[in-house]
Amino acid sequence: MAVARIAVVAGDGIGPEVVGQARKVLDAVLPGVEATEYDLGAARYHRTGEVLPDSVLAELAEHDAILLGAVGDPTVPPGVLERGLLLKLRFDFDQYVNLRPSRLWPGTTGPLASVKPNEIDLVVVREGTEGLYAGAGGALHRDTPAEVATEESLNTRHGVERVIRDAFARAGRRERRKVTLVHKTNVLTHAGSLWARAFAAVAAEHPDIETEYQHVDAAAMFLVTQPQRYDVVVTDNLFGDILTDIAAAVTGGIGLAASGSINPERAYPSMFEPVHGSAPDIAGQGVADPAAAVLSTALLLDHLGHPDAARRVTEAVAAELSSRGAGSPRRTADIGDRLAAHAAS
Amino acid sequence: MAVARIAVVAGDGIGPEVVGQARKVLDAVLPGVEATEYDLGAARYHRTGEVLPDSVLAELAEHDAILLGAVGDPTVPPGVLERGLLLKLRFDFDQYVNLRPSRLWPGTTGPLASVKPNEIDLVVVREGTEGLYAGAGGALHRDTPAEVATEESLNTRHGVERVIRDAFARAGRRERRKVTLVHKTNVLTHAGSLWARAFAAVAAEHPDIETEYQHVDAAAMFLVTQPQRYDVVVTDNLFGDILTDIAAAVTGGIGLAASGSINPERAYPSMFEPVHGSAPDIAGQGVADPAAAVLSTALLLDHLGHPDAARRVTEAVAAELSSRGAGSPRRTADIGDRLAAHAAS
Ligand SMILES: CC(C)[C@H](C(=O)O)[C@@H](O)C(=O)O
Ligand SMILES: CC(C)[C@H](C(=O)O)[C@@H](O)C(=O)O
Repeated sequence: MAVARIAVVAGDGIGPEVVGQARKVLDAVLPGVEATEYDLGAARYHRTGEVLPDSVLAELAEHDAILLGAVGDPTVPPGVLERGLLLKLRFDFDQYVNLRPSRLWPGTTGPLASVKPNEIDLVVVREGTEGLYAGAGGALHRDTPAEVATEESLNTRHGVERVIRDAFARAGRRERRKVTLVHKTNVLTHAGSLWARAFAAVAAEHPDIETEYQHVDAAAMFLVTQPQRYDVVVTDNLFGDILTDIAAAVTGGIGLAASGSINPERAYPSMFEPVHGSAPDIAGQGVADPAAAVLSTALLLDHLGHPDAARRVTEAVAAELSSRGAGSPRRTADIGDRLAAHAAS
Repeated sequence: MAVARIAVVAGDGIGPEVVGQARKVLDAVLPGVEATEYDLGAARYHRTGEVLPDSVLAELAEHDAILLGAVGDPTVPPGVLERGLLLKLRFDFDQYVNLRPSRLWPGTTGPLASVKPNEIDLVVVREGTEGLYAGAGGALHRDTPAEVATEESLNTRHGVERVIRDAFARAGRRERRKVTLVHKTNVLTHAGSLWARAFAAVAAEHPDIETEYQHVDAAAMFLVTQPQRYDVVVTDNLFGDILTDIAAAVTGGIGLAASGSINPERAYPSMFEPVHGSAPDIAGQGVADPAAAVLSTALLLDHLGHPDAARRVTEAVAAELSSRGAGSPRRTADIGDRLAAHAAS
């Protein structure tokens, strides 16, 4: 029997290039993985008009995890792949923990003058199956001066509490043991109150973990002025979308950002993917940096119960980044080979 | 007859200190202003339980503009002053343009290593009367495991189009003549489509103005990595709340950020206030920086049809900031005196 059954969705643009390297690294640290490729994304959509056929969804469900490169290109109408593929997987597979770590890696420089490598090391635990992403909304009198359009944020105690629990569990395994709740309780009073009460209830079970609350606008500001202050941040789906891009920006851009859409109970496959997109402008040139895809593979390994392998992959990336000279030529495949060799050793 | 009737809401904490200096500057550049003080904010709420009595609202309505310092303190429950005072004024006085300029002023340093003074000069035109701030939401089964809480974003063609028009009008008066629409059209497809179509329609009337669109997560990132790229940014109420705090952060913090909640038609009084809060920790010590309150006064002057006076006030602040030595002692009142003298000359 395979040690793990992984569905690989390489996707579009640089997706296949970076996923190819991530698979090298995966094979190096966890021999015996069974990987099956699925052709999904903009290319398939253009060719067949299909986004995610039910039969493919059913096959994906049979895997332990999904490794995704990047999907999309500028010619697909907004929403088609997002709602039809990425969000569909998050919702159908109940991936309620959207995990996004951000580190300012040794050997890298971020945009902030006063922050040194290793000083930023935070993880955002973003809710993945509720909020404004529920798809609850509509429009009346479309295309007339009387048009009204709505979007509804749906929040349940069930959905909010479970993701907060996950955040506290993760904080308990980290050094600083601190959780920051981010919301906008002063304006979104109904959802805000639910989040605040669920947070207080879970916090009461974890007296050893430090807690704080911030409004989303303040958190967006502090992520720029004092990102060092954060350890684990838990927040709703839309706030998490925005805050993780700021966290990526202050740690050197989305080029290095990894993510997991996780069902912690493993009742369904979780999905791991670099935060960067398909970058059609550099696709096919063999110059895409596979670091984010490889770091996403580390998250995958950790989720599947291989924390040592995950640690070795992460350390290989840290070593690779430390030793990179500014402007030294970097070929995607060479980086993958070095990472695989380092992680395996 | 007075040249302008201004309602002054000094508020709590450092509010009175900074507004005191702003009034000096106002009197210096526009003699004959009639200013009336209104006691509103946390102090009044604690003393009387009142937030904004109808009679006061009616009196405020008789003014040309409102100058506000800061309201709030940590002991007021979340939402009370926000919904009862600030948002009530924005909504009742139809202040649909929430104007928030951000500049990296000469003589100041922001947190970004690669950005030099004057390189950031953007203004966010945030919608002020719709979206998730409409107060449409509720909760069922509160305080039980079955609780569900909703927040609804309401967007009308009327409300969206008018604020986009304002953004284009402002861009037409600026040098770079560029407007960036920020939304999340790939997830919030109903509201996003309304915003995108209204934007395209107004853009078609302004062929001389450059336009671009960005998702809110990308914009949050680019505000950190390339804030120089923005001129006028137009966006919805909640996105604007978050983006303006990022813009404030990259230009040195909210200490210098000014804002206006504007009814461009002047059918109701507009309100001008520093973005910073009441800062109870430094209140009463005479050390609060009045720059943001004074810059808010410049926005007030501009709105009331005194662009020359506005320019002189802004230049006085620019000169003051240029000449500040790092760590030189700064007393609130001295700064106000210098600014008033400079602006009057
Ligand atoms: C592509 C889009 C649907 C997605 C999101 O908004 O969640 C992306 O921005 C992300 O952060 O994974
Ligand atoms: C105090 C709060 C209601 C307000 C807002 O969210 O608009 C504030 O954050 C602001 O930006 O003016």
